[in-house]
Amino acid sequence: MLKMIEVGINGYGTIGKRVADAVAAQEDMKIVGVTKTRPDFASKMAAERYGLYIAIPDYLDKFEKSGIEVSGRIEDLLERVDIIVDSSPAGIGAKNKALYKKYGVKAIFEGGEEHELTKCSFNAQSNYEEALNRDFVRVVSCNTTGLCRTLNAIDELAKIKEVKATIIRRATDPGDSKKGPINAIEPVLKIPSHHGPDLQTVLPHIKISTMAVKVPTTIMHLHCLMVEMRDNIGVDKVIDTLENTRRVILLDGRERIISTAQIMEYARDIGRKRGDLYEIAIWKDGISIKENTLYYYQAIHQESDVVPENIDAIRSMMGEEDAEESMNKTDRNLGIR
Amino acid sequence: MLKMIEVGINGYGTIGKRVADAVAAQEDMKIVGVTKTRPDFASKMAAERYGLYIAIPDYLDKFEKSGIEVSGRIEDLLERVDIIVDSSPAGIGAKNKALYKKYGVKAIFEGGEEHELTKCSFNAQSNYEEALNRDFVRVVSCNTTGLCRTLNAIDELAKIKEVKATIIRRATDPGDSKKGPINAIEPVLKIPSHHGPDLQTVLPHIKISTMAVKVPTTIMHLHCLMVEMRDNIGVDKVIDTLENTRRVILLDGRERIISTAQIMEYARDIGRKRGDLYEIAIWKDGISIKENTLYYYQAIHQESDVVPENIDAIRSMMGEEDAEESMNKTDRNLGIR
Repeated sequence: MLKMIEVGINGYGTIGKRVADAVAAQEDMKIVGVTKTRPDFASKMAAERYGLYIAIPDYLDKFEKSGIEVSGRIEDLLERVDIIVDSSPAGIGAKNKALYKKYGVKAIFEGGEEHELTKCSFNAQSNYEEALNRDFVRVVSCNTTGLCRTLNAIDELAKIKEVKATIIRRATDPGDSKKGPINAIEPVLKIPSHHGPDLQTVLPHIKISTMAVKVPTTIMHLHCLMVEMRDNIGVDKVIDTLENTRRVILLDGRERIISTAQIMEYARDIGRKRGDLYEIAIWKDGISIKENTLYYYQAIHQESDVVPENIDAIRSMMGEEDAEESMNKTDRNLGIR
Repeated sequence: MLKMIEVGINGYGTIGKRVADAVAAQEDMKIVGVTKTRPDFASKMAAERYGLYIAIPDYLDKFEKSGIEVSGRIEDLLERVDIIVDSSPAGIGAKNKALYKKYGVKAIFEGGEEHELTKCSFNAQSNYEEALNRDFVRVVSCNTTGLCRTLNAIDELAKIKEVKATIIRRATDPGDSKKGPINAIEPVLKIPSHHGPDLQTVLPHIKISTMAVKVPTTIMHLHCLMVEMRDNIGVDKVIDTLENTRRVILLDGRERIISTAQIMEYARDIGRKRGDLYEIAIWKDGISIKENTLYYYQAIHQESDVVPENIDAIRSMMGEEDAEESMNKTDRNLGIR
C-alpha cells in the first residue's frame, strides 16, 4: 500500500475547514491536524474531528480554560506533515512561509496572497503541470478560479482575442455578520481590478480587462463576461464545450433558476455538505454571441470552488504526474459529476 | 405676462410626485392637479398640495370614505391642462394615450413605455430639438438618461467606437418593501439587456452592448463602462469635459465617497428635497484610459435623475426653442449647479 500524503491545515476558516473535509475524503491523503488562533465553536469541532494545533502560543491558556483539547503547537504539526495548506487570512500566509521553509514542509497558499510569494499560481485544468514537485504553490482566488475554468475552455475552442468582464462581488461570507455594504454598491476604483491581472498569472496569453463592484449579498459572486473571439463559432458549440468542461455546470433560467439564490438552493438540494457548489454555474440561456463577441453570466460559490483545486495542487506538488488522474479522483470523492 | 403652462400629473408615484414638485418650482408652469388610483398617505398629501383627481371612477367611494377631498375625475383634469405627465406604472401609459388624444392634450410618457409609443425618446442634452412642438414624447428611463448624459459628452469629445457596459441595478426603490432580491444577484439573461438599444433611441449612432444584473440595494444603480474611443485623448481631458457637462458631478473616492451610500449622504447634506440627486455621479478617481479604452463608474439616482428631463420635455413640446435657455431655467429652479 502506498504511503498516504500527510496534510496539515493552517487556518481553519471558510476555506480551511472545507479543504480539511475534502482531504479527509480522498483515499491517498489524510489530515494530521488543523490550526486555529482562538477558542470558539469551530476550534471545538476541529479538535474533535482532526486534532487541533495552536498558531499563537500565547493563547494556549485561553484554549485550556475553554476546555478544548489541544494536540500541540503549529511547530509540532509541521514536524508531522508532508504538506501544509495555508488558509490563514490574506497576507498572513506570506509571513508564515519562512516557518514552513525552516521545517522543510511544502505549502499551498490561497488567493489572498500575491503571485510573487510562490511564482506559481495554480488552476488544475489550466496548468496542473506547473506545480509538479514544487515546494510552494498558490491556488488562485475563487473569482480567478472561475475565470480560469471557463475562459481556458473557450480559448481552446475559439481563440480569445480580448475579454472585458465585470465582477460583481458578494459583500462577505454567510457566516460573517460584521462587514458591509448592506445597502449600497461599492466600486473598485483601481482599474483594472486585480481579477484580470490575476487570471494572467495562470493564463498569461489571455488579454483581459476587469472592473469590479461589491454588492449586499453573501451567497455568490457573479461575473458578466464579454469575450471577443478570433474564430467564428456558434452558440451551440460554446454550450457543448462548456457542458463538457470539468467543474462547470450549465443551469437554465427557463427552469426558474433566475438568480444566485436558486443556484445555492440547487446545491443544497443535491445534498452537498454545507450547501457548497464546487462548480462554476453558467446560465445556459444567458449565453449569446453577437459579431464574434460571446456574452455569458457565471456564478461563483466563493466558499468552495477552490476546494478541489487545493486537492489537485497537493497531488501535483507531491509528484502525481497525471492531471486527469488527479482531477478524476478529486471529483469522484467530492461528488462532482 | 406670459401664460403659464398648465400641467397635470397622471400617477403620483416615485416619479410623478417629484415631477409635480419640480413643475411647481418653475416660473413658467404650474400644476393643475395630480391623479392617484387609491386613497393612501400619498393621495392625502397630493390632495392638500395640488388637487387630487381620480384615475379609476369605481374607487370614488373609497376616497370619500377615507375623507380625502377629490377635485374630480381624470377627464376633468384633462379638460384643464395643456400637457399631462404620465408617470403611471410601466405599460399603463400606452393604454392612456387614446384618452389624451381624445382630449387634445399633449403627453409625456416615462421610460417604462416603449419607444414606439411616441417615436420620440428624449434626453434634454442629447436631442431637445426633436421634441419641439410634438404631442407625444417619451422621457427615457433613469439608466438610459445616465448613459445619454455621459456618453453624449464623451462622444463629442473623442468619437466613440464602441461601448461595453454592465448595469448593476437596485432591486427596488427605498419606499417599497415588497420586492427582492434581498440576498442574491439576478442577471438579465436576454442579451443585450434593453439598456443598450434604449440609448440608441436617443443616440442611434452610438454602438453599445449591455449586460445587466439586479442586486439587493434600494438607493442607486451603478454602471461599469468600457468605452473604446476613436480619438486618442488623456484622462485629464475626460475629467475636464465631464466636470463641464451639465447634470453630471464628479465625486472622489479619496474623499471617502467609496460607495453609493456616501453619494446619497452627500445629496442629503446639500439639502436636496427627499435626498434626491438629479445629477449622474462619476467617481473621478475611477476614470482610467488603457489603449484607447476609457473606463469609468457612474451612479444613478433612479428616483430623480429624469425629473429635470421631464421639465425640459414640457418646454420643448410647448414650443420653447432654446434648449440651453430651458435647461438653465430648470437647473436654476432645482438647485442644480
